[in-house]
Amino acid sequence: MKKYADKYLEVDPWLVIESSFDPSYARVSESLFSLGNEYMGIRGYFEEGYSGDSLQGSYVNGIYGRRSIPKSGYCGMLDSTEFMINTVDWLYLRLSCNGEKLDLAQCKTENFVRTLDLSSGVLTRSFIWALSDGTKVKICFDRFLSMEQPEFGGQRMTINVLEGTANLQWAAGLDFSRPHISVGANLWDCDEIISSPDFCALTGTTQSTQQKIYAACTFQFEPEVSIESKQGKKLAASLFSLTLQKGEHTSFTKIAAIVCCRSIEDEDAFIKRRQQIAELLPTQSFDKLKKENASWWKRQWKISDIQIEGDDENQQGIRYCIFQMHQTLHTARYGAIIGAKGLTGEMYNGNTFWDTEVYCLPFYVFNNIAAAKSILQFRYDTLPQARKRAASLDCKGAFYPIATISGLECCDLWQHASLQLQASTGVMYGLQTYMKITDDRDFLYHQGIEMLVEISRMLATRGAWNSQTGAYGFYSVMGPDEFQMMVNNNAYTNFMAKKTFLYTIKTLADLYEESPDQYGLLFKKLAISSAELVEWKEKAERMEMKYDAKDQLFEQQDGFFSLPHVDINSISVDQFPLYSHWSYERIYRNDMLKQPDVLMFMLMYASEFSNEQLEQNYNYYEPRCIHESSLSPSVHSILAQQLGKEEDAYRFFQFSTRMDMDNYNRNTCEGLHTTSIAGAWMNVVYGYGGLRSDGEKLVLNPSIPEGWQSYSFCLLYKNSIIQVHTSVDKAELKILEGESVELVLYGETVTIGAEPIIRPIPIRRAQ
Amino acid sequence: MKKYADKYLEVDPWLVIESSFDPSYARVSESLFSLGNEYMGIRGYFEEGYSGDSLQGSYVNGIYGRRSIPKSGYCGMLDSTEFMINTVDWLYLRLSCNGEKLDLAQCKTENFVRTLDLSSGVLTRSFIWALSDGTKVKICFDRFLSMEQPEFGGQRMTINVLEGTANLQWAAGLDFSRPHISVGANLWDCDEIISSPDFCALTGTTQSTQQKIYAACTFQFEPEVSIESKQGKKLAASLFSLTLQKGEHTSFTKIAAIVCCRSIEDEDAFIKRRQQIAELLPTQSFDKLKKENASWWKRQWKISDIQIEGDDENQQGIRYCIFQMHQTLHTARYGAIIGAKGLTGEMYNGNTFWDTEVYCLPFYVFNNIAAAKSILQFRYDTLPQARKRAASLDCKGAFYPIATISGLECCDLWQHASLQLQASTGVMYGLQTYMKITDDRDFLYHQGIEMLVEISRMLATRGAWNSQTGAYGFYSVMGPDEFQMMVNNNAYTNFMAKKTFLYTIKTLADLYEESPDQYGLLFKKLAISSAELVEWKEKAERMEMKYDAKDQLFEQQDGFFSLPHVDINSISVDQFPLYSHWSYERIYRNDMLKQPDVLMFMLMYASEFSNEQLEQNYNYYEPRCIHESSLSPSVHSILAQQLGKEEDAYRFFQFSTRMDMDNYNRNTCEGLHTTSIAGAWMNVVYGYGGLRSDGEKLVLNPSIPEGWQSYSFCLLYKNSIIQVHTSVDKAELKILEGESVELVLYGETVTIGAEPIIRPIPIRRAQ
Repeated sequence: MKKYADKYLEVDPWLVIESSFDPSYARVSESLFSLGNEYMGIRGYFEEGYSGDSLQGSYVNGIYGRRSIPKSGYCGMLDSTEFMINTVDWLYLRLSCNGEKLDLAQCKTENFVRTLDLSSGVLTRSFIWALSDGTKVKICFDRFLSMEQPEFGGQRMTINVLEGTANLQWAAGLDFSRPHISVGANLWDCDEIISSPDFCALTGTTQSTQQKIYAACTFQFEPEVSIESKQGKKLAASLFSLTLQKGEHTSFTKIAAIVCCRSIEDEDAFIKRRQQIAELLPTQSFDKLKKENASWWKRQWKISDIQIEGDDENQQGIRYCIFQMHQTLHTARYGAIIGAKGLTGEMYNGNTFWDTEVYCLPFYVFNNIAAAKSILQFRYDTLPQARKRAASLDCKGAFYPIATISGLECCDLWQHASLQLQASTGVMYGLQTYMKITDDRDFLYHQGIEMLVEISRMLATRGAWNSQTGAYGFYSVMGPDEFQMMVNNNAYTNFMAKKTFLYTIKTLADLYEESPDQYGLLFKKLAISSAELVEWKEKAERMEMKYDAKDQLFEQQDGFFSLPHVDINSISVDQFPLYSHWSYERIYRNDMLKQPDVLMFMLMYASEFSNEQLEQNYNYYEPRCIHESSLSPSVHSILAQQLGKEEDAYRFFQFSTRMDMDNYNRNTCEGLHTTSIAGAWMNVVYGYGGLRSDGEKLVLNPSIPEGWQSYSFCLLYKNSIIQVHTSVDKAELKILEGESVELVLYGETVTIGAEPIIRPIPIRRAQ
Repeated sequence: MKKYADKYLEVDPWLVIESSFDPSYARVSESLFSLGNEYMGIRGYFEEGYSGDSLQGSYVNGIYGRRSIPKSGYCGMLDSTEFMINTVDWLYLRLSCNGEKLDLAQCKTENFVRTLDLSSGVLTRSFIWALSDGTKVKICFDRFLSMEQPEFGGQRMTINVLEGTANLQWAAGLDFSRPHISVGANLWDCDEIISSPDFCALTGTTQSTQQKIYAACTFQFEPEVSIESKQGKKLAASLFSLTLQKGEHTSFTKIAAIVCCRSIEDEDAFIKRRQQIAELLPTQSFDKLKKENASWWKRQWKISDIQIEGDDENQQGIRYCIFQMHQTLHTARYGAIIGAKGLTGEMYNGNTFWDTEVYCLPFYVFNNIAAAKSILQFRYDTLPQARKRAASLDCKGAFYPIATISGLECCDLWQHASLQLQASTGVMYGLQTYMKITDDRDFLYHQGIEMLVEISRMLATRGAWNSQTGAYGFYSVMGPDEFQMMVNNNAYTNFMAKKTFLYTIKTLADLYEESPDQYGLLFKKLAISSAELVEWKEKAERMEMKYDAKDQLFEQQDGFFSLPHVDINSISVDQFPLYSHWSYERIYRNDMLKQPDVLMFMLMYASEFSNEQLEQNYNYYEPRCIHESSLSPSVHSILAQQLGKEEDAYRFFQFSTRMDMDNYNRNTCEGLHTTSIAGAWMNVVYGYGGLRSDGEKLVLNPSIPEGWQSYSFCLLYKNSIIQVHTSVDKAELKILEGESVELVLYGETVTIGAEPIIRPIPIRRAQ
């Protein structure tokens, strides 16, 4: 299905540039110009206030509200759900000049430019404000969030008077009074409000969860200005006044700090940290923090940059995606999660989904191992909640939530929350992927194995035996393709369950061999019986997989091939998204796919399938897929590339690389498609690079799309950095740092060292 | 599965007797001693107030509240739902004696007896009240609802002083202040409150729907008493005082009248009727109304009575069921509906379901044709709502609600409301059944055919073609067996859709032949095209029915035979009802049935299946059925009887005949199982009588269970009354009134007239 770009940004290799302001794109730009540093995130809204359409979102990872759900009377249904909430507007600033308020929805402005510098993480906005009395001032705003010291953010405003005399007044500080839009209310109580000429602070407490945020800021300015303090019920600010003549200018900076307390148990640490931060704050400066931040980015880009010669749009697009991935997660210091929209909007409630392990983790595992580990650590930390959830679904072991912030299931649609097993098997897949690259046995044998055992237990109790064939399988499930709501023997679910059983058994066997004592402790701790192992093995061996050896097709679920056919190209464009135009149940009664299901596991375990098998399944399922999930095109792009379907590959590739920059799904206004952004990275590395990481060794099959002169990327792999550079006729691999690595290049096992290994790109025939 | 009786009532052929009061049965008895006359219903609560556990429900047919449903954001979901609400307590009475309040939860009483007389519809309760000062008074309450003049009800209290002197005080009147329990609030606004010594009245308006009820009452008493008036915000009452000495007595009666206004369009008629009733009220007397009521019942019992010799429990049980059926619907004058619990409780919100046409209509069609017609007329009157519902589900034509009061869909579980097509095909079945017995072509050709066309249109757009076999069928549906939530090609749904197409085509053809003009008008009115008829025919012919000719089994849905098997006898009793103990989705992933599905249509269209086919399917499906629906045992009893499985037949029969009297499902406290009660009647007439009414002629195959000496029942059939009397060795059929009737008795076509036709009961071997 064709999707259309909605282009309005300038193309540049390292900058995202909006060269004029269009109010109809206000929210889209707010999303695109979001900044984040894992710890917190802030949308690109106008700090001076804006009376037009806007979502002034400022979020802190792990700070959420809770709302109760009306009782259904059925077992296993949720009674409450949690959602990331809008926190403090630490950019708060209100400016007036000669009695006129600055508001881009009302004022006349010229030469508007907004620029995000991907190399340094600084967002800049400048414009000339033409006042009704003829006065003209040039205003420039900069902001950034510190990657090195994540509790800090910087803001600067400079004003140059171009015409006339400017009597300037501005308030600056911290505002906790913003509403959470999807609830339509502010969800904070505030106290300890301080506002003094050079320091403001206040503490907000969430009304439903009693989490706390301490926000503080200092100001620096020149020349001297007159100052008053300003307080509101949820506001701490200072009021500045200054008169400038034509040719004069002022520079005003604010350093803000945010300290959060996620649970009552952290209160002591919170009080201590608040004190430290309040002391540290006056020692920070805008320029120092900014410089430190630029260094951070420089170091990270050395590993993470992807360079494309000959395709400026995708060069910009892929750098933007990589930038956002690091903004979302990088330090692994704060128990952070990856929301479906990162920290860039309220949509999906800031919940994390199974995409985290399946789409995002591969990026981190090759770019930032600590971040990758933190994803798995979060699942280990929330194992108690997953155990409770399994019990509420009449299962043993652990059932991981399909959507969560704190570990509790947050998806209030029971059909998703109760029928989707892919969050649980996704944890296994994430762990397996992490292990392939890092070989972190300490984590595997202490945390990983506990999760594996508990997930296997769940799978062994959730499934059942086919009463005719005696095969094991899963009934009443919803696989990754969410357009088949409640089906039996979903191929993905069954396949992944089998993989989980086998990986659990193998890990236990390895542990027994490597550390019998730890094995013994684990058996005792989890009360594992050897009968369980026998049962898992049998269930894995007898797992139902509907596969037709003749046409080499996997059937997505029992009866899929008989479903009524819908020609998806006959559906008119105005019917999308289907959920908004089709009766709910109508979506579920035909052979249309929302996103890949069979093709998904064929990619995840690519080494187990031949190109021929893959092609048969691609040719059957892709034409039935409408890609209503933003995660869908990446998978198809990668597989199309493997099959030499270069047109498909490039079409799907471009779509995900610039999904938000070109607003392909027309919903970037709600926030960025953070997990799809991870798919974009996979598109280059797994797609054109032909990387496969599920086998014993890394496999690479670099190719290059028409029109590109070259591209290159790096992979962090077991303490080495491998660089892959592909030009029109050859691929060149070398180690930038660390030991040499053995991998499979174009089917040949090679050892990559500091000296480049060069191979010509094989000529392929489209299949 | 075994169900257990909970016996606490006395057995008597015409009376329901509770011979002592047990507070733990308070709510069960309130349900059992409910009175109704279609227009209104009142639970058997204590009119004097009761501080123990109680559901003081008083309902008026068609008076309901509405509540909004939180928006889901998906198409075809409801935004509001409607529920029958608790109305005026017209029995309101508060009695004190020597300063002590009468409250059976607190006071000492002796000789408590409560009796419902099924022959006359009068409920009587008497006891001796032993006061703490030694005074003893005997109190007796009578009440009834008029079947002849449904707006009226009567109440009488008599007090005899047995010991001491009784200073009596009582308030009597009309109370609108009762809460609606499931909402936990009172849902009325009141005005026009009048209370005078011999007349009280007030008008209540529902807060959410602006429906109105005018309630009025008069009092008669002897000897003279002193009177004051008493008013509350929602109360109109009078206060009576009287002192009686030992041996003296008083009799106090109240006649109450209820007039309702269901919609704003009826307001003029309401005002007029209110005036008439206020004038009529003083002319009524307790004894006159009661006598008139007894006559009504006497006439109706002549047609409707079932006499059983040799089984007192079932004699009482079946009369109780027949009594409740007439209480629920009989006059066809008020556009009444049959709620799942009639007018006896809040459960199921007073909504009517598809049971009305499938279970209840057969009773009425053989007992009270006008009532049967009113059921279908309600569906015709609500065709506009059904059309809107179809549109909201992306279908053409009419989609009838699975639960409704006013015609709007009221089931807020989308999976039921959107996936169950049996309400729509049930209307077709009801119409077909009605036509077989009455041949009312006027209704068929004017109202019936419009419904048929619109239902066929819905079915032709809701279904789809199997992409492998090219067969037509229904995907993502829930059939009668609600333990299979979202399946493809449910056998019942497909079968009934085929029947609907064919019946619609046949009816159109008949109409064309009998009245081409009316046919032309109809084609124009509904914009029918001949292409539609061709399409329906094709879809009927190519309807998918999974039937294995070898073992003669219908598969309940695609893949049913492969579902994991659950041995239902291995489920412990404390797990029931499963919805309260099993995780919601767990119920749906095995081969367990809630209620019959394949067996259902094999009964409804019995003439199309051989005994052998039936037996195969019975033997397969019955052992998988847990009968969690109260409708299930009846169907199995009837079929078991046909198959000569006499033990099964009797077990299931007894269960439904005394379901409420013996509180088999332990939830009679919530109200009566009104539609199951209809099943009980079917058990005798279709089960033991072997009646089948789906063919060209009536078929009868009377048999008699062990232990019975004889039983007899009557059938109203095309203006004749057929009496069927079966004794241990023979069946005797004759016409009591009207013309002779040709029917099939034991496979032989016979003409029944005034002279009895006698045939020996054939000897059968259990199959």
